[in-house]
Amino acid sequence: MTVPERYPSKLLEDAVQAIGSLPGVGKRSALRLALHLLRQPAENVHLFAESVVKLRDEARYCKVCRMISDDELCSICSDNRRDHNTICVVENVRDVMSIENTGQFHGVYHVLGGIISPIAGVGPSDLTISALVDRIKEMVSSAAAIPSEVEVILALSGDVEGETTSFYIFRQISGFGIRVSSLARGLGFGDDLEYADELTLGRSIIGRQPFRP
Amino acid sequence: MTVPERYPSKLLEDAVQAIGSLPGVGKRSALRLALHLLRQPAENVHLFAESVVKLRDEARYCKVCRMISDDELCSICSDNRRDHNTICVVENVRDVMSIENTGQFHGVYHVLGGIISPIAGVGPSDLTISALVDRIKEMVSSAAAIPSEVEVILALSGDVEGETTSFYIFRQISGFGIRVSSLARGLGFGDDLEYADELTLGRSIIGRQPFRP
Repeated sequence: MTVPERYPSKLLEDAVQAIGSLPGVGKRSALRLALHLLRQPAENVHLFAESVVKLRDEARYCKVCRMISDDELCSICSDNRRDHNTICVVENVRDVMSIENTGQFHGVYHVLGGIISPIAGVGPSDLTISALVDRIKEMVSSAAAIPSEVEVILALSGDVEGETTSFYIFRQISGFGIRVSSLARGLGFGDDLEYADELTLGRSIIGRQPFRP
Repeated sequence: MTVPERYPSKLLEDAVQAIGSLPGVGKRSALRLALHLLRQPAENVHLFAESVVKLRDEARYCKVCRMISDDELCSICSDNRRDHNTICVVENVRDVMSIENTGQFHGVYHVLGGIISPIAGVGPSDLTISALVDRIKEMVSSAAAIPSEVEVILALSGDVEGETTSFYIFRQISGFGIRVSSLARGLGFGDDLEYADELTLGRSIIGRQPFRP
């Protein structure tokens, strides 16, 4: 049953339409959010709108790692305390933030901007793979780094597309004499062995590590 | 475990903070939405922000029914084809839209702006009840309407607060000689009798209606 929505106000209708165009926000939520904003102090709503517009207009991509950045170089690439010889290759900005939030990584990143997916029509040329290759080529050809001291971590998803992309990148960069690694796969922290799938459990056994009590 | 969020960009952080301040939008969704907006054409993002700001700055409340409106009088109150003698009293704008979408109501509205709730600290004076009383008083004292032809429908929720509010309003307006009604309560369309709660089922029996095959 599709009843046409009747809005008491064109202004409300426009705002609901705009908010409802965001992914995962339905008509009902959009209306709830619009009415919420209507009840907020005007200056809060102005700040809200401004921050969204500023993000779109002023944010750019770091010229080295292609991450979202306020300047030409992102805060990580311009940080001298980071290990610039260890490059973690990730699919997107969310992955950078996830890894940063672990506090376990002190190298730099390379953001692919997606993953190779024939179904979604994403090929290697749609990603920043050639920029990654150039970046490594420059590192090892200049005196900046000894190849064996450079490590590229392929931190992509464990699904077919992630594995395909990892393999594609590996073939492009394996000739430089650098180290290439990938994330450890295995049981998650707190995971119940009984409920783990066979592939994951199998990988956990193959990749077993010395017990450190 | 509270790890401080590390953003690669202050612009991104500000936008995520702003989007995450909306009710029901978590940090993770806010980031997803911010990154979505970043990928949209700049002009779409500008339109999005503009529609939200315009809603906040330009929308007002109808001087008669207190509904969100683009003008001094809302589109329903200024519509001569509507029955201005039948006033449906609702809690909020969402309820107006829900009733409008049924296509079954041809009268006008009165938006209370909330419901009497001692727990939430909302009393009668926080709502537009006195404006409703004045509105009815004016209708019946002028020659505009014959009291017995005026009907007020109390279309509030069936919970304690809704019933309390209905009762409070009823006491304020019952002296004018107008008709006061409330929404029919009973089994929902398609509801299974076996799973209906006793109160609802009891009301369905008391309020039973002639069978219309």
